Formats: sequence, C-alpha cells, structure tokens
Amino acid sequence: MKRLTETGVDYPVWVGGTEAAEPLAALCEQRDVFVLSDENVAPHHLQSLRSQLGQALRVGQLVLPPGEQSKTMAGLERVLDTLIAGAFHRDAVLVALGGGVICDLGGFAAACYQRGIDWIAVPTTLLAQVDAAIGGKTAVNHSRGKNLIGAFHDPLAVWSDPARLNTLPEREYRSGLGEVIKYGLGFDARFFDWLEENAEALNARHEEVLATAIETGARIKLGIVAADRTEQGRRALLNLGHTLGHALETALEHGTWLHGEAVAVGLVAAAELSARRGRLQAGDVARMRHLIEAFGLPVSVPSSVTDAALEEVLSLDKKIVSGTLRFIGLDALGEADIWTDVGRDELQAAISAVRE
Amino acid sequence: MKRLTETGVDYPVWVGGTEAAEPLAALCEQRDVFVLSDENVAPHHLQSLRSQLGQALRVGQLVLPPGEQSKTMAGLERVLDTLIAGAFHRDAVLVALGGGVICDLGGFAAACYQRGIDWIAVPTTLLAQVDAAIGGKTAVNHSRGKNLIGAFHDPLAVWSDPARLNTLPEREYRSGLGEVIKYGLGFDARFFDWLEENAEALNARHEEVLATAIETGARIKLGIVAADRTEQGRRALLNLGHTLGHALETALEHGTWLHGEAVAVGLVAAAELSARRGRLQAGDVARMRHLIEAFGLPVSVPSSVTDAALEEVLSLDKKIVSGTLRFIGLDALGEADIWTDVGRDELQAAISAVRE
Repeated sequence: MKRLTETGVDYPVWVGGTEAAEPLAALCEQRDVFVLSDENVAPHHLQSLRSQLGQALRVGQLVLPPGEQSKTMAGLERVLDTLIAGAFHRDAVLVALGGGVICDLGGFAAACYQRGIDWIAVPTTLLAQVDAAIGGKTAVNHSRGKNLIGAFHDPLAVWSDPARLNTLPEREYRSGLGEVIKYGLGFDARFFDWLEENAEALNARHEEVLATAIETGARIKLGIVAADRTEQGRRALLNLGHTLGHALETALEHGTWLHGEAVAVGLVAAAELSARRGRLQAGDVARMRHLIEAFGLPVSVPSSVTDAALEEVLSLDKKIVSGTLRFIGLDALGEADIWTDVGRDELQAAISAVRE
Repeated sequence: MKRLTETGVDYPVWVGGTEAAEPLAALCEQRDVFVLSDENVAPHHLQSLRSQLGQALRVGQLVLPPGEQSKTMAGLERVLDTLIAGAFHRDAVLVALGGGVICDLGGFAAACYQRGIDWIAVPTTLLAQVDAAIGGKTAVNHSRGKNLIGAFHDPLAVWSDPARLNTLPEREYRSGLGEVIKYGLGFDARFFDWLEENAEALNARHEEVLATAIETGARIKLGIVAADRTEQGRRALLNLGHTLGHALETALEHGTWLHGEAVAVGLVAAAELSARRGRLQAGDVARMRHLIEAFGLPVSVPSSVTDAALEEVLSLDKKIVSGTLRFIGLDALGEADIWTDVGRDELQAAISAVRE
C-alpha cells in the first residue's frame, strides 16, 4: 500500500491492498459508520469492507440500485432518510463504497446531512479511483444537466485498491482508462509514453502497473485541485475532453455510453482541434488515436448523433454553467490550456474530424 | 444605516434604511440576480428591492408559498429547478428576501446550486434579522426534525432594515422579540436591562430603538459564530431556550406556535432550571417572566401538550442530533453555559415549573 505524499491536499490517499484497512479502521474507531454502496458493488465488496471497520460503534448501510438513476435528488433523499431513520449523529462517518455515482452521491449526502458529516471514499472503479473520488467535488445530476446540484466537501481519506477492479466488467474498466489517458495527454507527456508502453499490462489489469496508473492519475489531479479547490480557474483544465464528452453522453441519453467512452472521443476531438491550431503535430494525434484504440475505446461520434443534437447540448451546457465556452485545448502533448476563443466553426470542424 | 464593524466575520451586516441600497447594488453590478421571496413578503417589498438592484445584468425571481411548507426538500427543488430553467450561471447571486424560512432555504439553495453560488440575505422579520440570517447556517427541514439537511454557507452581505418590519403581523413581530430577549438573558445582562427599559418603544416598533435591538442581537450572535463557525462548541450556546422550544414546536406541530413563542417558554424553563441549581436568583426568574409578558409572549406550556409528548420529541432530537442532551443553562443573568449533566428529573421539574 502506498500513501501518496505531498499531494497538496490535507487528506490521505491510499493506493493499495488490505494494509490500508488499518488506518481506515482508526478513522472509524468509536464512531457510527454508514456504508453507502450499490447493487453491483455490494455483493463483491461490502462484507469485506464491513469486516475492516474495526472498532466502529455501529455500522449501518444502504445499497442503492446501480447507475445514474441513483445520482439524483431522489437518490439523495433516500440516503438522508436512511441516515435520519437510523439516528446517525453529526459525528458519524459515511463510507462511499462504489463507483463515481456512489462517491459523488455519498459525498454530497455527507456534505448536507446535519450541515456536513465526515466521509471516506472507497472507489471501486478505475474511473472513480483516478477521478470522481479525488478532489472533493460532490454532486447529483439534474434532468437538464450533470452535476448541477452539489458541494465541495473533502473526504477524510480515499482508499483505492487496484484489486477491487478485478470484479469490474470489462467495458467499465476500459471506460476508466479513458480518464487515465486524459492525464497523460493533458498533463504529463512522460506518463503518455508510459501508457503506450504499458497498454498491454493495463488491459490485463496487472495489479502493480495498475497501481502506478492510479497513483499517477490521482497525483496529477490532486496537484491541480490543491491549487484551485473550488474551481475558480485552473481546475477547469481537468475538463479536457469533457466538453464534447458530456455533450455526447447527454445526446445519447446518459447510460448508453459510459463516461470514459464519451471522454475518449472528446479527447480525440480536443487533439484534432489543437492540431488545427498548429499546437499539436499530426503524429501526436495519430498516437492519441492509437492509444485509445489500444484500450478498446471509441474514437468517433456515432452517426446516430446529429451535429444539431450536439450543438443543442453544448449550448445549454454553456448557458447554464458559465455563459462562455471554456474549451480545454492542448498547447502541446502533456500541456492542457484553457481557451476561451474557440468559435463555433472551429468546434464544428473538430467534431467532423471525429465522425465515423 | 449602520455597518456593523469588528464582528469577526468577513461579510458586512448593514442595519438601516435605503442607504444600504448602494453597497447592495454594487455587489450585484454586472451579475445575474435571482430574488427568492414568499407570498407574504413579496407584495410589500419585492418591487422596491428589485428597483434597488442597480446595474444587475438580469433579475429573475421566485415567490414561494409562505411558511415552513416551503422549507423542505421539495421547496429546495423548486428553487433549483427555477435557477436551472433560467440558465443562471455559477456567478449569479441569489437574494433571499423574507423571513427565516426564505433565508434558510435561499442560503441552502445557493450553497448547493452548481456547488455554491453567492447569496445575500435581506431578512424581513425581526426573527431573521437577529437570528436566521446571521451566521451562515442554512437548511431545510425533514419530517423527522428541523434543519437536518443543510450547509454552512456565509452570505456576501446581510441587510436588515427595521422599516421592513412595519408590514409584519403583530404576532410574528412579537415572536422575533423572543429571540431578542434570548441575547439579553444569555449573553448580556446590560442588554437585558435595556430591553426592560425599552419594552414599550419596542412594542411600538420605534425605528431607532428597534435598530439598536437588531444591532445588538446580530452583534452578539456574530461574536459567538465567528469563534465557532461550524458549531463544534460554543455556538451551541445560541440554543438557549431552544431545547424545550423545538420540542414544543414539534409537539404542537410546526406552525401552531411561532418559533419565538416556543423559545420564550423555553427561556423561562431554562431560567427555572438554572434557579433550581442555585445559579439564578428567584428575582431574575421573575424579571424574565415579566419581560416576556411585557412583549406579549407566552410563559407556559399549553395543557394540550403532555409531558409524554414533549419527552418523546426531546429524546428523538437527542438521538438524531448529538447522542447526549446538551442543555444550555445560565450560570448567571447574561451568562449562558453548556451543561451536559442535566438529568431527566431536572428537566421534568423545569417543565412542571412552566406548566399553566
């Protein structure tokens, strides 16, 4: 087990196996603990996690239906109702055991139950280990947009065990690799090289290689987050690939594509747009496409999604979230940048470049 | 208009008339503004407030039904839905124009819309001017308890205009005086004397006297809050009179009694309990009862509320909120203290002392 150091945030991130159970148990000692999980994750991991909680006073739990359907105001109310019915106090600790949905929802429930209780993230998907569980952003979705209701609420600790990924369905695992690639493409060219070299081992879920990927992704994200906790500026860089990614997810209706799959196409589009501005070499874009394909991820917008549908979602997103489109482009491989001058034609050309 | 200084919090609190409109307009300049109010307040104050927003880019509004029915998850969703439908960005500012319900709800909506937008409190009840709008605590109620879902989210500013209280129904105005008395009884014996001397002027809503009461109450609360923003310790002192007060409100069903009415009885009970411990003189308790009656507030638990009903609510509250009863007692007039050793018999005796 490795405890990431000098991350810039003041909570520990543990990457590794059962040795992390000891500090976890210490955080839960003499406290009421409430474990939130979902029906996909609980059969594999809930019992073993409960057995690792040591001297907790009392352990409650709620297992929700899997997927985005639970990441809603209704899902939030179920968590809060259960906490209240169980008379969990303000000094209880909520443990979110699951993927991005459970971490985002559990963190937000912890943020607003009795105006904030402690929580611990135990992400069980690669996506959550390198992204959702890292950085203190919590939220639920609204029918008109993702993550529109939420809070910044740091966890007490994050425990990412690569071994938990063994039970992940293949497609979900690969979706997580989409976010991993993002960290190489946008923030660390050497990590990009490393991913190319280790693509095969990652596809085989080689535990040590995986641990390195999780550590590197989490560390890159924490570095950016620590400098901009509440997303006033640089944190937006993490949205590399997400402008088009989110639009694709929404246009396809959430759940048709997995998040990392949509982000993969968004990353290619960002690379294409950056190449058109002369910032990336054609060779970089080719490497990018090749790496994404090596991980079995899509590189194209499906023909069922029209340009009009994408544009409508992009425009709504822009209207609600910031008023201006802040596109995350690439000044070079490994150097993401916030561009506020990306026009409609330029975006359209990038989308055309990722058409089948 | 008086701007309270050296309050210990980093946002301004303005007590006074239209001169505060200028700094308010400055905070809203070139921003989208969303005004939240209720059907009782809006007819009197919404238009004039809108006209004071100056160079705002755009002003949206939502007027909710009055009362606790809006301080719920359903009420919160209405506010969030309206913000989203109106495409309010993360840099919009929400103005809560109303009593405690609107300030608590508006502040919480601002806390979780897009993970936190700015808000300004414009309290229109005495209760909100000295309590709800001061201190950054925001929340909605749950069917099993008050304020169980919320956030700590400081406003950009608070503007308390005593003139707005002219439109307040008599009973609501007097309810606010219940919280005002609390500040004298628990925190400032000289303010208690001052209240006795100015009871008549306060009953007549004399604007200058009222301004002094609002300033003093707000300043006392801010002083306690600044030292304990997230309620780990001393902030609990502000619950003086609220242990029994909340229980009474719940046992009577919320809305039958106003908050300050229930708190008034709770204050008498706290004084009685403290006198039984020899901390208060019998004369202090008599002064206390006399002052409360001078403001037309109740000093007794109505006979319709049984001891069993009160005990049930007290026990549920204790179970959910903290696990132990933290009773706020009085070491002397003007000196509230947190007592964790108050037993059931002692509490019962105090309740008997406030029976009709």
